[in-house]
Amino acid sequence: MSASSETRPLAERLSRLGTETAYAVSEEAKQLSAGGLKVYPYHIGDLNFATPEIFVTEMNKAVGERKTGYCAAAGVPELRSAIAKTLGAARGVTYGIENVSIQSGGKPVIWKFLAVTMEAGDEVLYPSPGYPIYESMIRYLGGVPVPYSYTETPTGFALDMAKLKSLVTDKTSVFIYNNYQNPMGACSSDEEMADIAKLCVDHKLWVLSDEAYFDIVFDITAKSIVSLPGMLERTVILHTYSKSFCMTGWRLGAAVGPAEVVNHINRLNTNDEACTTHFIQWAGIHLTAPSAQDFLHNTLLPELKKRRDLIVPLLNKIPGFHAYLPKATFYVFVNVTKAMQLTKSQSLEEFRKLILSKTGVAVCQREHFGNALPSDTEFYIRFAYSGITCELIEESMKVLTEFMQQYAN
Amino acid sequence: MSASSETRPLAERLSRLGTETAYAVSEEAKQLSAGGLKVYPYHIGDLNFATPEIFVTEMNKAVGERKTGYCAAAGVPELRSAIAKTLGAARGVTYGIENVSIQSGGKPVIWKFLAVTMEAGDEVLYPSPGYPIYESMIRYLGGVPVPYSYTETPTGFALDMAKLKSLVTDKTSVFIYNNYQNPMGACSSDEEMADIAKLCVDHKLWVLSDEAYFDIVFDITAKSIVSLPGMLERTVILHTYSKSFCMTGWRLGAAVGPAEVVNHINRLNTNDEACTTHFIQWAGIHLTAPSAQDFLHNTLLPELKKRRDLIVPLLNKIPGFHAYLPKATFYVFVNVTKAMQLTKSQSLEEFRKLILSKTGVAVCQREHFGNALPSDTEFYIRFAYSGITCELIEESMKVLTEFMQQYAN
Repeated sequence: MSASSETRPLAERLSRLGTETAYAVSEEAKQLSAGGLKVYPYHIGDLNFATPEIFVTEMNKAVGERKTGYCAAAGVPELRSAIAKTLGAARGVTYGIENVSIQSGGKPVIWKFLAVTMEAGDEVLYPSPGYPIYESMIRYLGGVPVPYSYTETPTGFALDMAKLKSLVTDKTSVFIYNNYQNPMGACSSDEEMADIAKLCVDHKLWVLSDEAYFDIVFDITAKSIVSLPGMLERTVILHTYSKSFCMTGWRLGAAVGPAEVVNHINRLNTNDEACTTHFIQWAGIHLTAPSAQDFLHNTLLPELKKRRDLIVPLLNKIPGFHAYLPKATFYVFVNVTKAMQLTKSQSLEEFRKLILSKTGVAVCQREHFGNALPSDTEFYIRFAYSGITCELIEESMKVLTEFMQQYAN
Repeated sequence: MSASSETRPLAERLSRLGTETAYAVSEEAKQLSAGGLKVYPYHIGDLNFATPEIFVTEMNKAVGERKTGYCAAAGVPELRSAIAKTLGAARGVTYGIENVSIQSGGKPVIWKFLAVTMEAGDEVLYPSPGYPIYESMIRYLGGVPVPYSYTETPTGFALDMAKLKSLVTDKTSVFIYNNYQNPMGACSSDEEMADIAKLCVDHKLWVLSDEAYFDIVFDITAKSIVSLPGMLERTVILHTYSKSFCMTGWRLGAAVGPAEVVNHINRLNTNDEACTTHFIQWAGIHLTAPSAQDFLHNTLLPELKKRRDLIVPLLNKIPGFHAYLPKATFYVFVNVTKAMQLTKSQSLEEFRKLILSKTGVAVCQREHFGNALPSDTEFYIRFAYSGITCELIEESMKVLTEFMQQYAN
């Protein structure tokens, strides 16, 4: 890496740092929109709901009480305690204040967990397609990323456990698990989760359980891998307020796990950001308040379910498209292998750009969630229905169907 | 590092991670206070002022406008532009939006700057005594910390430039400069700043200019090293709202420097915390609003100056204490070498604990800002007068004077 002739080269580690390429889709969409095209935003997993009022009210109460100075790097004890109690109860385990480190959102948990548990040179199993920051941070910290993938079954996406087991070596030290998975919306069966847990215990792996979508489930009861035997002591949960309460821009989350790991994460907090915004933490204490839970269960989830139940059948009517009804997250991962053949698209990226430029339907594709694997035989695009209304879903599906019909005839 | 027999050892890099030991003083003070001792809090650099109302009002306006979702990792363009303009004008240089990366406070700038500019194995010059996170992050990222110190002169603290120059080697790549210095309150003369700039240009060093206290100056006009020839292209400014507007708990700051370095810092943002709290950034845009500047110049600075002008003469009346009148920051770095002799204290830590336990005066000492250097011949403690009233300053100085007088007779 070079700067000018008057300055030294920049650090080598920058070459190992990845990014989220999905933002590039936002830029494309913005330009097409400026050019007069009506864009249907399915590309970003943000939510078009206001944050429940109680968090705003309580934040202002805390500001009024002069909670505007520093607080402890680990977080406000009352919030750590509230999260310990709430997450423990929902997962059937016992957490105390010593198990919770407050973070500025869920994302920082990824690198802090890896920095604490992963030695440079270690192999880390992570899902691909998956949240792109896993691979970026594994590489940046000197680890060896080992992607595992899900396969399509008659009922949705599932792991090929035999294949997963074959990826474990003497150098594997960490397993990253994202049940209620982005981008696939995959949910592990009880059997699959038990198999994963056994694998992690057998090989003494540290586990990051990214539970960003733990609250975003339909018709099922969410379950965490920490509740399985031998998992509590090796698992750090990535917890965030972002999705459950439409607080993506607030930046509030937590690392929840074994006290020794959490202590080191607290030390990283001291060095990194001093503390998470003080008064926002006091708002966060109200995560189990009736009005917050009412919002989650009686506003957010019913509306998301309505959108899911609307979009999935419409997607399945589009020539060359095939989608499962996901039981979790606000994503649909759509198989467009046949649609690509119909449109004679040479690549997934070409197909994505085609539908964006011709119909305004902005989506991400599989490679926004990691490079395609040699085992990939089908092609997918991701629809996020978190930031779009039912009216626009209907309209966009009509436009997209008409567009694809010209190739089907 | 070990966890339990059922889990793998934790990462080696944790052994290189330091901390801020000053928080231990808070714990001691809390316990003594619970035991009935009246504690005078001079140990933490936090401020006992409310944040100017405009930031609260504008934050809520942004929340009302649904600025509660994600924003760009680099920060809201309007805020980047406002900071570029404001910092550029105050420093006599030109910055654009491409030179500003918004951060969750000033602290993250330290590791992000080092991650971008410092190769593992490089030597980094940093002030000791100084903010302890410099050394911690240099070590954590695999660099070699090379401390430089200030010496007492008849008018305050100054650098021994010959000595500083002798510390530069072929391996030196970074210089960390904290003018308006914590804990010494040191201010570089124009000559000293020019000498530092020349050294950095001659050796093509990257420079972190920690300007957390740039606004906290008395009777002088603040000056930044970026304004000197050859410095703009090699310097990243650590900028923060914390001290100027009493927003330590809000977590709002920025890295301001060459576009190429800032771009990489933006990439670290994407991987680390996604973005700084969205609606707080919209509040931050108002940093030059008349009411914010009125607070800084007509409330905060006059009150801090009043405290400084009260405490320094009183400190100089205490047997064995000697202090200069600092022109910047809200710290007084007090020479207590003679006081230690009077009290027969075997170490600075023993002396600090003595006055805390006997008088309730809670301070930090030199070693809270890095290990003592072989060249250290005098002993110092730091008084932060940012979080204490004039009334309590008078009272505490009386208590401390009476305590020391028993040894002086």
